[in-house]
Amino acid sequence: MAGSEYMVPGFRSAAAAAGLKKHGGLDLGLIVSDEPAGAAGVFTTNRVRAAPVVLSQEHIIRGEARAILANAGCANACTGTPGLEDARKTADAAGKALGVQPEEVLVASTGVIGARLDVDGITGALPGLVAGLSEEDLPRVAEAVMTTDSFPKLSRFDGSAGGRPYRIVGIAKGAGMIMPDMATMLSFVLTDAGISSLDLKKSVIQAADATFNRITVDGDTSTNDTVFALASGRAGTGGIAGKDLAGFREGLCRVMEELAVMIVRDGEGATRVVHVLVQGAGTAEEASQAARTVANSNLVKTAVCGRDPNWGRIMAALGRSGVSMEEGSVDIRINDVEIVENGLGKGAQAEKAAAAVMAGEETIHLTIHLHQGEHEDRVTTCDLTQEYVAINADYRT
Amino acid sequence: MAGSEYMVPGFRSAAAAAGLKKHGGLDLGLIVSDEPAGAAGVFTTNRVRAAPVVLSQEHIIRGEARAILANAGCANACTGTPGLEDARKTADAAGKALGVQPEEVLVASTGVIGARLDVDGITGALPGLVAGLSEEDLPRVAEAVMTTDSFPKLSRFDGSAGGRPYRIVGIAKGAGMIMPDMATMLSFVLTDAGISSLDLKKSVIQAADATFNRITVDGDTSTNDTVFALASGRAGTGGIAGKDLAGFREGLCRVMEELAVMIVRDGEGATRVVHVLVQGAGTAEEASQAARTVANSNLVKTAVCGRDPNWGRIMAALGRSGVSMEEGSVDIRINDVEIVENGLGKGAQAEKAAAAVMAGEETIHLTIHLHQGEHEDRVTTCDLTQEYVAINADYRT
Repeated sequence: MAGSEYMVPGFRSAAAAAGLKKHGGLDLGLIVSDEPAGAAGVFTTNRVRAAPVVLSQEHIIRGEARAILANAGCANACTGTPGLEDARKTADAAGKALGVQPEEVLVASTGVIGARLDVDGITGALPGLVAGLSEEDLPRVAEAVMTTDSFPKLSRFDGSAGGRPYRIVGIAKGAGMIMPDMATMLSFVLTDAGISSLDLKKSVIQAADATFNRITVDGDTSTNDTVFALASGRAGTGGIAGKDLAGFREGLCRVMEELAVMIVRDGEGATRVVHVLVQGAGTAEEASQAARTVANSNLVKTAVCGRDPNWGRIMAALGRSGVSMEEGSVDIRINDVEIVENGLGKGAQAEKAAAAVMAGEETIHLTIHLHQGEHEDRVTTCDLTQEYVAINADYRT
Repeated sequence: MAGSEYMVPGFRSAAAAAGLKKHGGLDLGLIVSDEPAGAAGVFTTNRVRAAPVVLSQEHIIRGEARAILANAGCANACTGTPGLEDARKTADAAGKALGVQPEEVLVASTGVIGARLDVDGITGALPGLVAGLSEEDLPRVAEAVMTTDSFPKLSRFDGSAGGRPYRIVGIAKGAGMIMPDMATMLSFVLTDAGISSLDLKKSVIQAADATFNRITVDGDTSTNDTVFALASGRAGTGGIAGKDLAGFREGLCRVMEELAVMIVRDGEGATRVVHVLVQGAGTAEEASQAARTVANSNLVKTAVCGRDPNWGRIMAALGRSGVSMEEGSVDIRINDVEIVENGLGKGAQAEKAAAAVMAGEETIHLTIHLHQGEHEDRVTTCDLTQEYVAINADYRT
């Protein structure tokens, strides 16, 4: 992966092995903005918030930041007041090493819950990180924050505003919406576009809702989920507004969508990406609720694992989702194959065709029409395999 | 299993192999009451209701019934108007064979969704079933309704009312709250006690809520879930009332609880039964919601499979459950081992002790105290294993 491909003017990065991961390797990443950058964040909705989430929510209120310090190997979650102090110490040390205020440092952690952070390991690695900062090393940060991820996740969008080109680059980690002792979803997005803090915040919330909040691997939400976006303004676009702002938002969505699908594709043990699209729902909430229920059904997910077009499980999930529906009005397609019409199966021929699609395609589209109204929504998930169970049963042992 | 152990005066049963199951074996059961019996039922809350559920809800309004006809191999769900006609034909045929009204026949089905019922196979087997009715053959009915179940499930309670002994016997099938193409939860409870239809109905609803509605294997709810209770009155207890009614309800709960735990123990691929008890919740609803969220978490269930006292996953599930909680107030015990106190882990020693308990005991008690109020609730589940995925991925193939 050529680092230059992911360069964003105004930002430098570095990664190090600080001894935080059980099996070694890069585990600490630092991203620095040469000047104060516009900053926005989206955080977990879990009531159990990890210490780095609590601290970064405090720091990001300023709407500006200079650095992101992120580690894998330890989530620093369920660690109480001492854990919050630990997070604060690492932000303080990073601020000191960079010559910026501690409040200008955002922190993120992922790894084992309940264990204390190795503050000395992190502060000890900081001088080397600062000395090694490079415009080309963002991919190494993407590698450092990996846990059960099988590949680093990066995405880029090139846009233009006010006649000036700009770039949005995002990195992410995550192979489950949650695995409290190993994973979490972290994503850091950098851009050299100029954009007001308020517009950046709105754009990030909107994009996260359309992308990261519409994927699920196991229906869980981590204590550590964090999205940071930093804007350096170095592209000279000036403050993006109007149509350019719409273009920026679309670019942000594309970057986050690509990262989101990478996370699902890398879902623990996953062999198929499944896009569940619910159409014709009575309300927007019902469309979302129906899609989410189908996407989180273990029985639907194991059927996909078995390449079995078992539409009865989809019907049953819809029936228990709590949304308005009539059995006799439901249509279901698997990719291009109509498998249910008016609530009834289309027969053995259709099932055979659908099974062939599921065996042959890595991306499955389950399209459900409820014929109750005009609303639609989608959720992307993956199949549930024996490998998922093996990963999650055996990890700490 | 000695059939006489499960005899209930006033009832006779029979089972047959009607060719409905793919791999053969008993698949059709008939339970007959010599006289009209008081009857009550509890049915699935899924909006997609199988034909036998629709028909039996219609029939049971009378508060009396003479027979239950139950089959495995085909759920007769998502079969539309023709499916409802099929269910009606089998009830009609059973009524004719027994010399009773069709409305006095309750029906229940479990098996593949979307497939039409083999009406001829069932009606063809009826004369043999009626000829073979015996007081001792209830265990054979329990066997006939099995799908992925690995053992038939029967439970008995002996009580007395008005100085006269009576008996409650229940059978059940189910190895998942749902597997729409193979399983479902069915339970039939017979008693010779005398009890008014209204009291029977209230008692069954209450007992089902306390037992069957508090187990989960995979968080799903079948299209076919059905509980029937029939009371013959043959024990000569007269109409049970007052303290005797409380005793009857307790007996009913005991029978259903024993069956419910058998279902979880037989959960597909399960190696551990897990009782999740949430105490100190702010409201009854929050106690239930918190227990349900923990019990349905794939990450908690895979941790149990791995004998890993991974309390971080329990904290994270509580945090996303939507109930009022403060991280620093949560206590968690695994059987007798305190593993979390005031939101913090009790250390390596405690984890080691808890891991030993999880490895050594087949029944795991996760006791969670939220310290928010006085309400408690419990949900029983099982671990999530690779075998679960194998069963559900590979079944139809």
